[in-house]
Amino acid sequence: MAIFLALRSPEVEVIGLTTIYGNVYTTLATRNALHLLEVADRTDIPVAEGSHVTITFCTQKGTKLRIADFVHGADGLGNQNFPPPEGKPIDMSATDFLVEQANLYPGKVTVVALGPLTNIALAIQQDPSFVKNIGQIVLLGGAFAVNGNVNPAAEANIFGDPDAADIVFTSGADVLAVGINVTHQVILTDSDRETLASSNGKFAQYLLKILGVYFNYHHDAYSTKGSSAGNGVYLHDPTVMLAAINPSLITYVEGAVRVQTNGITRGLTLLYNKQKRHPSNYAIMYDYSLLSGMHLSRFAEITEWSNQPSVKVAVTVDAPAVLKLVLERLME
Amino acid sequence: MAIFLALRSPEVEVIGLTTIYGNVYTTLATRNALHLLEVADRTDIPVAEGSHVTITFCTQKGTKLRIADFVHGADGLGNQNFPPPEGKPIDMSATDFLVEQANLYPGKVTVVALGPLTNIALAIQQDPSFVKNIGQIVLLGGAFAVNGNVNPAAEANIFGDPDAADIVFTSGADVLAVGINVTHQVILTDSDRETLASSNGKFAQYLLKILGVYFNYHHDAYSTKGSSAGNGVYLHDPTVMLAAINPSLITYVEGAVRVQTNGITRGLTLLYNKQKRHPSNYAIMYDYSLLSGMHLSRFAEITEWSNQPSVKVAVTVDAPAVLKLVLERLME
Repeated sequence: MAIFLALRSPEVEVIGLTTIYGNVYTTLATRNALHLLEVADRTDIPVAEGSHVTITFCTQKGTKLRIADFVHGADGLGNQNFPPPEGKPIDMSATDFLVEQANLYPGKVTVVALGPLTNIALAIQQDPSFVKNIGQIVLLGGAFAVNGNVNPAAEANIFGDPDAADIVFTSGADVLAVGINVTHQVILTDSDRETLASSNGKFAQYLLKILGVYFNYHHDAYSTKGSSAGNGVYLHDPTVMLAAINPSLITYVEGAVRVQTNGITRGLTLLYNKQKRHPSNYAIMYDYSLLSGMHLSRFAEITEWSNQPSVKVAVTVDAPAVLKLVLERLME
Repeated sequence: MAIFLALRSPEVEVIGLTTIYGNVYTTLATRNALHLLEVADRTDIPVAEGSHVTITFCTQKGTKLRIADFVHGADGLGNQNFPPPEGKPIDMSATDFLVEQANLYPGKVTVVALGPLTNIALAIQQDPSFVKNIGQIVLLGGAFAVNGNVNPAAEANIFGDPDAADIVFTSGADVLAVGINVTHQVILTDSDRETLASSNGKFAQYLLKILGVYFNYHHDAYSTKGSSAGNGVYLHDPTVMLAAINPSLITYVEGAVRVQTNGITRGLTLLYNKQKRHPSNYAIMYDYSLLSGMHLSRFAEITEWSNQPSVKVAVTVDAPAVLKLVLERLME
């Protein structure tokens, strides 16, 4: 859905897809990327295959990939048994492609990272100028001040490669993190799905087929009464894609983010906005803009967040506007 | 302040003080406990000295105690050079005393834990019936969904002995945790301090002397404009003491709490209320009572929070009522 949205958004030019494990293994993700471009008749866009393992795989032999195949089906596309794609990925790794494009178009390339951050962390390690040359990295990841979706501590994309995520957050790149505290605000309801079904558009009809598994997963995993997703599905990736395309859809705060990389909260993202603050009112707490210009106070000790570069962390989203754009662009 | 409040509260009988490191080493904490009982003319109350080291000291030799002596001065009592106490602690450790009292008065003893939780964790390990026999454990600890006060991840009391805290939270005892997300709502202002000064009461006059260092610490550590503590001090311990005495002063939610014991978020407390929930509205998010009776959903995997006993975590406090009680009882 996010890829189709990008292809249907006149504001941006899609210059390539890079792949990563997450809901499926990387090999299958590559195959699905090629397949989706064929469905969209956009085989001019290159697909670069990403890492098959986490960034610490070589040093931590025990690290097993977590593949959440229960979310979108074993094939990652709603168990639709689509035919294999005819195309092939380019003869260049995702990391090499990211480095190349950042150097080709300094400051112009936005990376929309919708899975674990291994490829991007590898690009940061490979090319010291990547952080400066890449435009913005808009990522779907983290659970800021809320419980995760893999376990109470961690969100799935960060949990997929916590070490890579910590490298990206502390790299100094222009990072905008959109966590599930934001994407859980954007629900495609059963009724929206019917709206989508009323369209004869190619993308709408295709997506309807693959959404069945995702809707069933939500009906099973989330409570059917009271929960926001009780009668619909979270639009995680489409929300992040649209936030990358139109930043005015979200608001954000800035601060240092670190990722816990071991123990029971492995994958936890922790934002520090560099001042002790009043937590009694969450509206105030999250409207950090009110606090800008304040004298910054200090902890007694240097912390793991001290002297780290700031990143942007999304806090609110204009959910109706996102939904309207999703439906409009996919039903065209 | 918390000890004096307990002594001035007709609702409770203080049956003993146990000591622990935190703002000072345990030896000095014991001395200060004896001193305070002499000031209050209550030397009938026994003082049992607690552990000098964290619960994992024997297995993790590198663990160094963190003594936050910058909060209340090197002596823990505002650098007032009080004379040494005449009394002595009882010939029984804090842990033995806790176990003894719980067995003597099953279900009747409330432990108000205002420092690291080493003594209580040792009692849990020492006596399998302690968890059943102790009444409620009301503790000052944790930073729930907000930044900590030692570093962005951890609150000071939990950070002092994270392993002990995890033992207490997962013990099955009736635990009420009051974190800094709640105690930061209760501020004793400069103006309140003047009110206290207008009293001829023994406790008020004594406290005025030792509060100077604490006020200076807040003026230095917290921003002077905009921050809630800009013109006052947080009443952490008195708030917890009064919450133990009068539970109607706070509201709480229930869920499993685990403590991260290593890495950069060592000491982080993470509450899971056992259902995936809608984080877009913090008012709804924290009013879990609205959600009670809902179908409980599940993560795909068993987590470190699964099958853990529930504890109570305070979320709101009637700050004006707490302040009123503090001033009334200390000015008597």
